[in-house]
Amino acid sequence: MTMTAAAPASAKPVAGTPPFDARKLDALMDAAGIDVLVATSRHNIQYLLGGYRFFFFETMEAAGTSRYLAGFIYQKGKPENATYVGCDIEKFEASQGRFWVQNLDLGWIGSKIAATRMADHVKKLGGVRRVGIEPGFLPSDAEGVLRQGLGNIDISDATLPLERLRAVKSAAEIGYLREASERVTAAMKVTFAKHCMPGATKAEVFEALRREEVERGLVFDYLLMTAGSNLNRSPHADQKLAKGDIMSLDSGGNYKGYIGDLCRMGIIGKPDQELVDLLGWIDEVQMASRRLIKPGARGGDCWDLGNRMVEASPHAKYSDFIAHGMGLVTHEAPRLMNNPRWSYDGADIELPMQAGMVLSLETTMRHPKRGFVKLEDTVLVTPTGCEGLGDAGRGWTPAGTG
Amino acid sequence: MTMTAAAPASAKPVAGTPPFDARKLDALMDAAGIDVLVATSRHNIQYLLGGYRFFFFETMEAAGTSRYLAGFIYQKGKPENATYVGCDIEKFEASQGRFWVQNLDLGWIGSKIAATRMADHVKKLGGVRRVGIEPGFLPSDAEGVLRQGLGNIDISDATLPLERLRAVKSAAEIGYLREASERVTAAMKVTFAKHCMPGATKAEVFEALRREEVERGLVFDYLLMTAGSNLNRSPHADQKLAKGDIMSLDSGGNYKGYIGDLCRMGIIGKPDQELVDLLGWIDEVQMASRRLIKPGARGGDCWDLGNRMVEASPHAKYSDFIAHGMGLVTHEAPRLMNNPRWSYDGADIELPMQAGMVLSLETTMRHPKRGFVKLEDTVLVTPTGCEGLGDAGRGWTPAGTG
Repeated sequence: MTMTAAAPASAKPVAGTPPFDARKLDALMDAAGIDVLVATSRHNIQYLLGGYRFFFFETMEAAGTSRYLAGFIYQKGKPENATYVGCDIEKFEASQGRFWVQNLDLGWIGSKIAATRMADHVKKLGGVRRVGIEPGFLPSDAEGVLRQGLGNIDISDATLPLERLRAVKSAAEIGYLREASERVTAAMKVTFAKHCMPGATKAEVFEALRREEVERGLVFDYLLMTAGSNLNRSPHADQKLAKGDIMSLDSGGNYKGYIGDLCRMGIIGKPDQELVDLLGWIDEVQMASRRLIKPGARGGDCWDLGNRMVEASPHAKYSDFIAHGMGLVTHEAPRLMNNPRWSYDGADIELPMQAGMVLSLETTMRHPKRGFVKLEDTVLVTPTGCEGLGDAGRGWTPAGTG
Repeated sequence: MTMTAAAPASAKPVAGTPPFDARKLDALMDAAGIDVLVATSRHNIQYLLGGYRFFFFETMEAAGTSRYLAGFIYQKGKPENATYVGCDIEKFEASQGRFWVQNLDLGWIGSKIAATRMADHVKKLGGVRRVGIEPGFLPSDAEGVLRQGLGNIDISDATLPLERLRAVKSAAEIGYLREASERVTAAMKVTFAKHCMPGATKAEVFEALRREEVERGLVFDYLLMTAGSNLNRSPHADQKLAKGDIMSLDSGGNYKGYIGDLCRMGIIGKPDQELVDLLGWIDEVQMASRRLIKPGARGGDCWDLGNRMVEASPHAKYSDFIAHGMGLVTHEAPRLMNNPRWSYDGADIELPMQAGMVLSLETTMRHPKRGFVKLEDTVLVTPTGCEGLGDAGRGWTPAGTG
């Protein structure tokens, strides 16, 4: 078991040098007509600050009658003007050289007061016609203050350029996603064996997996769980595990902010032939889809194939297949699906895949008699094809063995 | 060690019956001229749904190119019209009877699409002139959609009425705060003894305390830590502990959303007389302040006294005292301080304290030679005075003893 800390990397950035592909960001901003970015989401601030993620408000941003709000300001082509607005406690991080940004304004807690500072910094920059914000991650009162402070400067949505910037992962990011995925599946294996005993409740298994992930240096994100033939995926039920039960553990845990999100199947006892065949078929869909994942392939091809295989199968009525990018955000670029209820637009369906993209593939079966059977895998696009991250335990994992 | 799950309580609410003091909320809304509330912060949704806290997006709300956004809609005097807007996965919770609200609209992920649904529900209600929102916890794009959807209906800030509603804690909430506080100090005691060995780094202690809190069924929120005479409170430093070092552990961990936030001191070795006196003086300030905490006392009195004691002491230059309410939010009502940089307004300084309020008292010394010395205590206002929660380990705790 590794003892690596879940805390952000202590590697020191080079002052004044952007840790991301600044040329790419400049080009994306140019195409979107954005002169200055004001990033306020945790994932984009982390990305743009080279891994820096302020720990203090991670689980609860509320404070007083407002909330912590940080902002990263970047002017196209001028990294020397980049500015970070944060709170007092971050001075302890600054004094350890953890920022590449040379302009730090640390001392503020509150959405309005932080936005006032952000507006002041943008106004000091010259030639700014349009500022790009993250509307889903900028509180409405902060946006009001920013808009008022910026006067005649246009405000537009910078979500998509920022998502594009993150679409192809660096070697370090791939390493984090690999660690996250491997640690999640390792935690699942132990949880199946030690904690999925007959008589244990789903709520107990939830707590056990949470601890096993934390023990492995992850931040636990969530667990969806089924047991027996019950299709309810809530992990909070008092439902007790019984001999012969199948179980699905679908959990996310993050390592330095990068998410491992996988689903594995366990059974208390031995699977009969039908169960072996059901999971075997799911594996077949997953692996067939993987074979279409490589640089240059049309983004939507792997999703199309998985869907066609499901539709052509005897399990069509109660099964589905989805595919999506992942990284700092559970579902991100490449966007391979259309689902307005989930605000997904399938923007990458017709675009070519690139080496360094990371996908999640999920084949889900809600079998009316046998229960919930699913595999979710994480797949890295390599220069020559693809590679599974955290591929351990994709068969029926023995549970309750102690 | 307790095995209680960190997951939300599984106690089932009574359908149609608000789990909060609806008469109080109605009066607060009346005073603020608000007909309908649209709550979107995690803490207020949890409060208004009687403890329900959707686990899935707890650590990362981002999804796709937007984010998860839930909304609780409450019409003054008409709990039968209360509506909750959430996502698909919450149907698994609904089918277990975990909602008191009878109108559920579950199926949406995305700030704009969720806000569209919230606007639709508000429009169905009759006689609505003003809707109260949480501007710090409503994304700007969601507010835009809501504003457009509501047409001529006014929108105003409901943060303060909601904070007032939460100011006096119920017996159940006090129980959770007690558990959170006791588990945090228990985790600290073990961390001092087992993990604060000479040679250990602050980053290793951070990870150890995180695990000790999670082992005790808490969600780990944060740790600020000092060691030796170094005043830097960042827990990520490679600074190594040495024999004779004093250490401060100031950590938050939550139990069912309720925060335990305490600071305790440890030492590798034995404290000399000066250290005993310094911590003794801090204890004196804390205890003197506590003696002014009782129902009917002026809110600001305990803060005034602590400040006066600091100012009159030889430690004035490098010490301070603060006091604030706490509960689902680290700093909440009663608001006993004025600090515009932190968006605090001291609204409760002149108001009487009430039994059931919970305060945090913090005396902090940045001693130029001996290092950082601090106690933070959690204090419940009882019918006759006050009571410390998690009061264990307030002296010099032996560290590195194994």
